[in-house]
Amino acid sequence: MGLALNAKMKINKPASVVYDAFVNPDRIKNFWFSKSSDVWVSGRIITLGYEEYVAEFDIEIVLTELDRKIVFNWGQGNEIRTNTITFDVISEGMTLVEVVEEGWNEDNNDLLAELLQNQTGWVYMLTCLKAYLENGVSTLRTGLVI
Amino acid sequence: MGLALNAKMKINKPASVVYDAFVNPDRIKNFWFSKSSDVWVSGRIITLGYEEYVAEFDIEIVLTELDRKIVFNWGQGNEIRTNTITFDVISEGMTLVEVVEEGWNEDNNDLLAELLQNQTGWVYMLTCLKAYLENGVSTLRTGLVI
Repeated sequence: MGLALNAKMKINKPASVVYDAFVNPDRIKNFWFSKSSDVWVSGRIITLGYEEYVAEFDIEIVLTELDRKIVFNWGQGNEIRTNTITFDVISEGMTLVEVVEEGWNEDNNDLLAELLQNQTGWVYMLTCLKAYLENGVSTLRTGLVI
Repeated sequence: MGLALNAKMKINKPASVVYDAFVNPDRIKNFWFSKSSDVWVSGRIITLGYEEYVAEFDIEIVLTELDRKIVFNWGQGNEIRTNTITFDVISEGMTLVEVVEEGWNEDNNDLLAELLQNQTGWVYMLTCLKAYLENGVSTLRTGLVI
């Protein structure tokens, strides 16, 4: 499958709660994007914004399996990548969230910098997600300087 | 200076408080290593342990400037890298913590995987540090699956 980024986090909440935090525009702002234009469902184009980092762009939701999996694409042209977020039940009330980002253009001169930047983003988001769901802390998501 | 990893986090605490969280063995366990064998001072060898990831190794503290900077080496042989943690006062009670890891052996076949792994570690640690110092949350540090 070629080059891929990967990050995994255990979260002490049921998969349904973790899944909803991504697809529900009222909840994602507590740990990741400040704006998500609609509920995430298969086939929908969603505009995401990160006010604090002056970023706004569209993603395409390729697939949603309730409480189990989200697949979406971001980027443009030769730089479209596919992100898969899976929600696995480790035990009752404990979920493993895994992110895989694949489809990297290996001819990109800035590949290493972009890999490191996006890995940074995934790990940061997953840690903010854990703090939000387990501790109700939603103030971590603007501290990283990029 | 060659290849380097870099991560920066704003933390709403004075530099003295953030600095102490690293050098004080009773505090580092709240956001990073479960074991730190002694107070970090220039010239000292410190044994660090991460019980949850079954890891234990020594680092060499190269330099400490109170409330401003920590430099330490880790690794062995051709794989010794230098880590510099700086504490900059952004405004009263607000600190920018920056980590730089340099000295990477660019001939290492596993270089990309190791860069991504260590970048993951730095971002995770800095986010856990922010949650610990700002919110008193010390339970994030064992959720990442590596």
